[in-house]
Amino acid sequence: MIRHPAFATEPWRVRERELHLDVLAQTESVFALSNGHIGLRGNLDEGEPYGTPGSYLNSVYELRPLPYAEAGYGYPESGQTVVNVTNGKLIRLLVDDEPFDVRYGTLHEHERVLDLREGTLARKVRWSSPTGTEVCVTSRRLVSFTHRAVAAIEYEVEPVDRACGVVLQSELVANETVPSQSADPRAAAMLRHPLVMEENLPAKEGVAVMVHSTRASKLRVGAAMCHQIDGPEGTLVDADGSGDVSRVTVAARLEPGQRLRLVKFFSYGWSARRSRPAVHDQVVAALAAARLVGWEGLLADQRRFLEEFWAGADVEVDGDPEVQQAVRFGLFHLVQAAARLEDRPIAGKGLTGSGYDGHAFWDTETFVLPVLTYTYPRGAADALAWRRSILPPARDRAVQLGLAGAAFPWRTINGEECSGYWPAGTAAFHVNADIADAVTRYVDATEDTGFERGSGLELLVQTARLWRALGHHDAQGRFHIDGVTGPDEYSAVADDNLYTNLMAGENLRAAAEAAARHFDLAQALAVTRDEIASWRDAAAAMHVPYDERLGVHCQAAGFTGHAVWDFAATRPDQYPLLLHFPYFDLYRKQVVKQADLVLAMHLRGERFTPAEKLRNFAYYEAITVRDSSLSACTQSVMAAEVGDLKLAYAYLGEAALMDLEDLERNTQDGVHMASLAGSWIALVCGFGGMRAGGGLMCFSPRLPPGIARLTFRLRYRGRLLRVGVTHASTTYRLISGPPLPLTHHGERFTLGDELVTRSTVKGSPPGVEIRQPPGRAPAPRRTR
Amino acid sequence: MIRHPAFATEPWRVRERELHLDVLAQTESVFALSNGHIGLRGNLDEGEPYGTPGSYLNSVYELRPLPYAEAGYGYPESGQTVVNVTNGKLIRLLVDDEPFDVRYGTLHEHERVLDLREGTLARKVRWSSPTGTEVCVTSRRLVSFTHRAVAAIEYEVEPVDRACGVVLQSELVANETVPSQSADPRAAAMLRHPLVMEENLPAKEGVAVMVHSTRASKLRVGAAMCHQIDGPEGTLVDADGSGDVSRVTVAARLEPGQRLRLVKFFSYGWSARRSRPAVHDQVVAALAAARLVGWEGLLADQRRFLEEFWAGADVEVDGDPEVQQAVRFGLFHLVQAAARLEDRPIAGKGLTGSGYDGHAFWDTETFVLPVLTYTYPRGAADALAWRRSILPPARDRAVQLGLAGAAFPWRTINGEECSGYWPAGTAAFHVNADIADAVTRYVDATEDTGFERGSGLELLVQTARLWRALGHHDAQGRFHIDGVTGPDEYSAVADDNLYTNLMAGENLRAAAEAAARHFDLAQALAVTRDEIASWRDAAAAMHVPYDERLGVHCQAAGFTGHAVWDFAATRPDQYPLLLHFPYFDLYRKQVVKQADLVLAMHLRGERFTPAEKLRNFAYYEAITVRDSSLSACTQSVMAAEVGDLKLAYAYLGEAALMDLEDLERNTQDGVHMASLAGSWIALVCGFGGMRAGGGLMCFSPRLPPGIARLTFRLRYRGRLLRVGVTHASTTYRLISGPPLPLTHHGERFTLGDELVTRSTVKGSPPGVEIRQPPGRAPAPRRTR
Repeated sequence: MIRHPAFATEPWRVRERELHLDVLAQTESVFALSNGHIGLRGNLDEGEPYGTPGSYLNSVYELRPLPYAEAGYGYPESGQTVVNVTNGKLIRLLVDDEPFDVRYGTLHEHERVLDLREGTLARKVRWSSPTGTEVCVTSRRLVSFTHRAVAAIEYEVEPVDRACGVVLQSELVANETVPSQSADPRAAAMLRHPLVMEENLPAKEGVAVMVHSTRASKLRVGAAMCHQIDGPEGTLVDADGSGDVSRVTVAARLEPGQRLRLVKFFSYGWSARRSRPAVHDQVVAALAAARLVGWEGLLADQRRFLEEFWAGADVEVDGDPEVQQAVRFGLFHLVQAAARLEDRPIAGKGLTGSGYDGHAFWDTETFVLPVLTYTYPRGAADALAWRRSILPPARDRAVQLGLAGAAFPWRTINGEECSGYWPAGTAAFHVNADIADAVTRYVDATEDTGFERGSGLELLVQTARLWRALGHHDAQGRFHIDGVTGPDEYSAVADDNLYTNLMAGENLRAAAEAAARHFDLAQALAVTRDEIASWRDAAAAMHVPYDERLGVHCQAAGFTGHAVWDFAATRPDQYPLLLHFPYFDLYRKQVVKQADLVLAMHLRGERFTPAEKLRNFAYYEAITVRDSSLSACTQSVMAAEVGDLKLAYAYLGEAALMDLEDLERNTQDGVHMASLAGSWIALVCGFGGMRAGGGLMCFSPRLPPGIARLTFRLRYRGRLLRVGVTHASTTYRLISGPPLPLTHHGERFTLGDELVTRSTVKGSPPGVEIRQPPGRAPAPRRTR
Repeated sequence: MIRHPAFATEPWRVRERELHLDVLAQTESVFALSNGHIGLRGNLDEGEPYGTPGSYLNSVYELRPLPYAEAGYGYPESGQTVVNVTNGKLIRLLVDDEPFDVRYGTLHEHERVLDLREGTLARKVRWSSPTGTEVCVTSRRLVSFTHRAVAAIEYEVEPVDRACGVVLQSELVANETVPSQSADPRAAAMLRHPLVMEENLPAKEGVAVMVHSTRASKLRVGAAMCHQIDGPEGTLVDADGSGDVSRVTVAARLEPGQRLRLVKFFSYGWSARRSRPAVHDQVVAALAAARLVGWEGLLADQRRFLEEFWAGADVEVDGDPEVQQAVRFGLFHLVQAAARLEDRPIAGKGLTGSGYDGHAFWDTETFVLPVLTYTYPRGAADALAWRRSILPPARDRAVQLGLAGAAFPWRTINGEECSGYWPAGTAAFHVNADIADAVTRYVDATEDTGFERGSGLELLVQTARLWRALGHHDAQGRFHIDGVTGPDEYSAVADDNLYTNLMAGENLRAAAEAAARHFDLAQALAVTRDEIASWRDAAAAMHVPYDERLGVHCQAAGFTGHAVWDFAATRPDQYPLLLHFPYFDLYRKQVVKQADLVLAMHLRGERFTPAEKLRNFAYYEAITVRDSSLSACTQSVMAAEVGDLKLAYAYLGEAALMDLEDLERNTQDGVHMASLAGSWIALVCGFGGMRAGGGLMCFSPRLPPGIARLTFRLRYRGRLLRVGVTHASTTYRLISGPPLPLTHHGERFTLGDELVTRSTVKGSPPGVEIRQPPGRAPAPRRTR
């Protein structure tokens, strides 16, 4: 866990002032740079020490066998694992023949700064070698938002008080040693050296190129580098390469006051189809473009890109500098994950680590895309275009499962199911409704008819077909979806999971509407009027389980009749429960890992009365242990809605600080994209009370004591608007675009060029005791 | 599948008159010999060709890793697999330097006979070598019922028409090549050469000894052999051994009319603890005892043992010679599995093959022990003593699962859970109630107070504790057992599985009674009066799910509300369903693999009215596909009880002929002990209508048209009785023991020395249509 305060609390930067090797892997994730295509972990320039070396290209994966003690029909036989590709960020330094390694000699000063407006990771080090030569090393790196295939590093070294010999080795290295990712010796062996060398061309004419391909998945990966070198007279440059290493060596003698400066441009490309020469040429060409722009040009482009992003995305949180920093840190990682996606997935960890094998899950659609939709809609469109691109395997999977339409995978990189445990994989069909929901939200927010006709409609139709096949009308006509798993991973394979039913109902309705709207295109998908009617029927008849005795909705049929988990007998060190109790015991008791019914109340809020929301929230709060990072933000939103602003604020803190404080102790494997999105969700949907749909944006602002003023920007249907909330009043301002209808606490008005100000409603406390299981209340902040 | 008729239909023998190499593996299982300690598959004496070479010692297993694509808390990490131990039955023959191999030369005559009264497998072959030398070979083998460690073979060879040179090589061979049992390369490698040589002492003084140990499980296995040889003058005998082979070679020149005869005695022993010298001495000693008795002595002892067994176990079925043969074949395999068990398990396949990895399951207690209890009670006591012996790992497992008492493994050899799929393993807790039920039945049938106090009470107490911890009282006080799996493997992890609830209720009641009866001993197990009261409370409050709308009981909560499987759309080649549809789809629909609720109606019949039984039976018949061998016999029993005698008779045929006709196409892996027991159950409990408990035996005989007379013998509380049923009357006779209360169709009487005759009730047909899913009715016999 990252000790508090690991990072200085600054509004636009994440700054580390001391190097702690025990949390090196965590900081590599926090400081990772990415543009959605290339991802570079924040490894030290010199490569060692490291937590996990990581250079990733979106969708470059290796296959590995999925073993089963007892196999079953339809179990996926092979999984995908993100691969650590050729490392281009490596720059080794020798000072008077001593390798620069912070584990030896003396580290006098250390600073790393992730700059959220510059889009760079800067480093400054003052170090004495074991023999006493002191040098100052500064570096800055970026992964370009504007040049998709390009990353670059500026590296400078300068002696402090006496002359010294300095050697830089700038490298491309493939098949680095990576800590084992799998307990299965066959898979571990396969992933140990995933890349097969096809070409290693040293830096002839200054450009070095390496082409590899993955052993089983047969993906071809190219990397290239070139350098600009500034050094004193007599600086020698040499290039060599063999095996999996390509190297440019720069040697110089530096007097105090002299510097050796190196700018390294490196580029990546990959393809499942293109030839070695084509991939080779592609990375060389990318490099040429980068050199043309130059280091300063890349920096300026980077700044401009982010300026535009922040203009439409920034959230200001007066009074809580920690959350202020965290929400920007989260938005920065989100835009990093989405900037240059172009039909590729956003993985659970983005491209910041190999956690979850680099797989994408439902949380992209449910947590990440809602934020992107209103702040960087192109990213949402790209992520959904990826879903559209994997419809063929999803349709095959539906056939294999005896269903209709498309069954999207629970976890995947290439579109094929990688889940090796079906009760929490295949059975979690809600991912399909989550995708449909993201489509509906995106189309509502953008009126992007091209997307709707090109991708959205088919996604809605094929997922609606899945639900129609998966569910059935009972003798009384009610529509049930039996034997599926909802979001809560401490329950599985239940009938009528309320979240799934409500989301599937909306999926069916949205498909019916879209198919009616674009009936020409729908017919091309063989949709008939009868089929549309059958979707409307199923949606209208969708069963919603309710416990009359307790007066609450049921997470699933029978749920509220189960024994309640014995929280009193559960020790603090037994959380997360899944590491200390068998699934069978978790599944059959009332204990909730993460928001499930409560998430339904956020996303399908119109289906519950305020009184039901309060009763349900209180009931499920008491049994929700939050052993997942996909929970605090939703609990924050609903706590705010039912009026418990103190609790909502506590959950906001947890969501926001998940990675900066490593609250779940796994930030080492990559940052939590959904939780990073969650701080925006908690602020905008929770305290801003934002809900949107059908062309209408609604707000119900209410602020907790800890926040003096909350300001956020949103993009909606071609408008850019800004909402400023204080405890006294809320101000709506249209920054650009035509007038827009809005509601403020239910009062409808049209926002035009004039600022609109309304009183911020002082909510009354819920009047019902809301309590978490013993020891599972969100920890008070700053005392952690 | 074995072609019909593969075996001649004889009342006391299973005779094969032709050798079909395509069903060699199946016949190896059918002709397997065993005494419950040693098991020898019916491999040809000369070793090749073979389907699966198999020599087994009860509980000699190797460990292998259990892999998971996604692991979870409490998943077993290592499995056990039965090991093919040293093969002692190998006798190779060379005729004029040509190896005797039925695949070469000409096989003029072939016959194998399993004699159910002699306890031997005899073989007679007339064969010409490829060069035209014709010989007659006869052999007979036995695994001794009376000498637990001993097997023996008499082997004779005789030229038919011209003199020839003959060489016999009688061997002990370890680490034979066995067809791979695992898709996991690591496990396959481990099982390919499971035995590590510790000693190979050739036949000095006539006795050869080999000692091996298993690589990972560290079990020491000894085998020894010696020979009596009868041949013409000049017969040479030699012995050698090296590596994994020990060999005695006998060479003779035979004139027509001369014979070479060899009697091979071989013995086995194993231990997890004893030293190499101790195991060595043990097998040599066993051999000495066998030689003392001699071949004829062993034969005579074998005959006597079986004579006594049949006196108390035989079932006569006049009018149906196929079933007559099959029920005796089944009883023979049962006594083979149980004869010399002595605290070891009865595996699902006995010791006749490596199917199911040699594991024991709940079917031993539920199908095999009911038969043994009334025919060979010592075998039932031994099998339950094994359960008592594995209480320590079962109690550890309960602790691991967060429960109390004992959680017996779903599948095991050494007592530790080997199930790699928890929804159909760990969650199938009913195995614990099945064990308790077997204890209750055994104690009722034998009044074996020593067993009850020594083993039975603790089994009842620890399983009752499990149920008390596993279930909970709801707000209305009803006791529920949530999230468990019943016998039907096409459903899993449901609430209030009716079978489980009723069996657990009986378990709790029986424990309460036994603990009260032996309160001194119960106190030593820390049982208090309050705990006993809590068992009685839970049993009395046990919830029994019932669907008021349909007027039937529910297999589990919510079951009857599920969609019914689309049988019309299911092709005949899609059975068994589990090979063609995912579990998720099977689990969430109304489709039943095997009797579940129907089994509850057999075992807990007192909990249902006759009308309920009929309605339930008809309802579940329509959705039961019988993709399991653990179903037909139960369906036969309940079909008989509700009056559909034709259907009961059809199911009897299916249960009885499961292995003799290889109906499930997996007899190659070993015979189905439970189904073999099932023909007895169908006859005695179905057509005999036998139920027993509380010291009372009840009969409700009714015969189907296909059976003219049914006679069976039973042991009960020190009595031996015989029941003879014709369509007209039923005759009860007490063969030995004091008078016994019985009922005949509910009419109570006391059976003393006098024969009692009553009318056999002509039942009326059920008056309700009873129908199976399309294509899943039992196939008419003799047309298969």
